[in-house]
Amino acid sequence: MPASFATLPKPPYYAVIFSSQRTQDGDAAYGEAAQRMVELAAQQPGYLGVESTRGIDGFGITVSYWADEASILAWKRNLEHTAIRERGRREWYAQFELRVTRVERAYGWRRDAAHADTAQSSDAEPGRHE
Amino acid sequence: MPASFATLPKPPYYAVIFSSQRTQDGDAAYGEAAQRMVELAAQQPGYLGVESTRGIDGFGITVSYWADEASILAWKRNLEHTAIRERGRREWYAQFELRVTRVERAYGWRRDAAHADTAQSSDAEPGRHE
Repeated sequence: MPASFATLPKPPYYAVIFSSQRTQDGDAAYGEAAQRMVELAAQQPGYLGVESTRGIDGFGITVSYWADEASILAWKRNLEHTAIRERGRREWYAQFELRVTRVERAYGWRRDAAHADTAQSSDAEPGRHE
Repeated sequence: MPASFATLPKPPYYAVIFSSQRTQDGDAAYGEAAQRMVELAAQQPGYLGVESTRGIDGFGITVSYWADEASILAWKRNLEHTAIRERGRREWYAQFELRVTRVERAYGWRRDAAHADTAQSSDAEPGRHE
């Protein structure tokens, strides 16, 4: 899973927030399946990007970004995705929560794009990008 | 930061997705500030919960949940929050991305709530909870 930022268009778009607690089982197979899921998602119409991380306690959050709800539904129905998802329930997850959201607005900040004296919170600071 | 699931009402509600890359600096002070932010957020009107995790590479995702957009705006304007946020830009973050989203629908699954034979993907499986 990539541990980095997605490059996204201006809102509106959609985000699926997937929070999960891993079991202690099947790390190698899980890692392969997670990587395959990212590859497969990236091939879907309407896929915009993904951000994902997991702590050493096994609690993780993956956010996938989509152009519209139809793309999310098509991805949900993808057969290989469905098979991997079912294996996730059998083996890899103790619990998960999934939330489908509409992104209303977004902004970001990068250290290397900011001036040294711009530690301020207005909406117009250098370093802001959209 | 709690590494666990938020208990949330039925949608609609709002989620703020905060993805961030930590610098190498100030782990102790960062940990204290992060904890303080969670405590402070929990006191705000409209706060519903938070989920947060960070990998060993320093890439993290925190999702805070709110009743409505007014609550998010009030939290953004909170003075102590603003001060901590500015310190975050000066010291703790190399980059962050923030997305304000409206949660349209949600579902979850827990191993201990599921029967052994319910590894299926329909919307009606035991183990599903809302």
